[in-house]
Amino acid sequence: MKIGVLGSGTVGQIIAGKLAGVGHQVEVGTRSESTYGTAAAHGELIFNCTAGTGSIDALRAAGEEELRGKVLVDVANPLDLSKGMPPTLSVCNDDSLAEQIQREFPEARVVKALNTMNHQVMVDPSRVPGQHHVPIAGEDAAAKEQVATLLQEFGWPADSIVDLGGIRSARGMEMYLPLWLGAMGAFGSADFNIRFVR
Amino acid sequence: MKIGVLGSGTVGQIIAGKLAGVGHQVEVGTRSESTYGTAAAHGELIFNCTAGTGSIDALRAAGEEELRGKVLVDVANPLDLSKGMPPTLSVCNDDSLAEQIQREFPEARVVKALNTMNHQVMVDPSRVPGQHHVPIAGEDAAAKEQVATLLQEFGWPADSIVDLGGIRSARGMEMYLPLWLGAMGAFGSADFNIRFVR
Repeated sequence: MKIGVLGSGTVGQIIAGKLAGVGHQVEVGTRSESTYGTAAAHGELIFNCTAGTGSIDALRAAGEEELRGKVLVDVANPLDLSKGMPPTLSVCNDDSLAEQIQREFPEARVVKALNTMNHQVMVDPSRVPGQHHVPIAGEDAAAKEQVATLLQEFGWPADSIVDLGGIRSARGMEMYLPLWLGAMGAFGSADFNIRFVR
Repeated sequence: MKIGVLGSGTVGQIIAGKLAGVGHQVEVGTRSESTYGTAAAHGELIFNCTAGTGSIDALRAAGEEELRGKVLVDVANPLDLSKGMPPTLSVCNDDSLAEQIQREFPEARVVKALNTMNHQVMVDPSRVPGQHHVPIAGEDAAAKEQVATLLQEFGWPADSIVDLGGIRSARGMEMYLPLWLGAMGAFGSADFNIRFVR
């Protein structure tokens, strides 16, 4: 499948590398080379791996017409680093980055996914032993199906994918970040993920 | 131990019942009977099980002098129900209810705990099979030790208690609520808890 990856930071690199590794034709768009539009035009499906506070601008630069009707996997966290560490969120509680993106690009089929863990775990869930979960959220059931298929190509078992419902559920996925940071501090490692134990 | 439980809703009832069941002398303070002060005076340790948006007022009614030097276990979530369901938070991101309480009552030894799960799981962790976690946060190490001892009396294994650090880490514990709500919706049950899998 032709996939466009927007963002060439740590997350963009590892996502693009994994997608290529499992056989997809990947084009990466970067801010420095103004290639968001090229990557988006290439992709039948698009990953947003840009910094959350710049995601809307990056997607505008990619072009609304290049997103129309396409699945847009939003991996970004809206980290506000302006107040020092640990970061706060630039949007939360009564809104989320994924909702902002969906409102701004109503014809894109936004699916929030993979933002709840370290980048290495995203593409290699076997780094964490046993069962653990990857929540997803979005309005479009077929889009979520397509993302679930990609996640399985990444190594996520089908029953590790938890569909939280509509795009509003992205709030919870983004607001989980401070707990993730706290746990990382407690464990001294980012090599973990959550499991919803029942 | 003499323990005061502020709040007689679902959470206050189940916490008070469990504390009594494991041998503590419990006094419950309720708003309707204006007995916050009596319960706080009784307690060598105090549980805040009031509704989060009313917690500061309830603790003021209990009286600052009754909280001085005491461990104050803050179980509350700052749920804003005024905008309908699902609730948003009345404070988050750059502050938390636990931090507000600690600032308002600087001589209380605030420990955030147990707000990350359903009330039944709080006092009976064996409802959820296998290992799962109860994060705690607070400035006072001895206070956290005391809370950890109580949690073990509730049935939490020592290695299920995750100390996230100072009271600021309560933000993550409170901001986890929307993800918890999303997972509850996906599973159709509140009988779950998170495990940080490593």
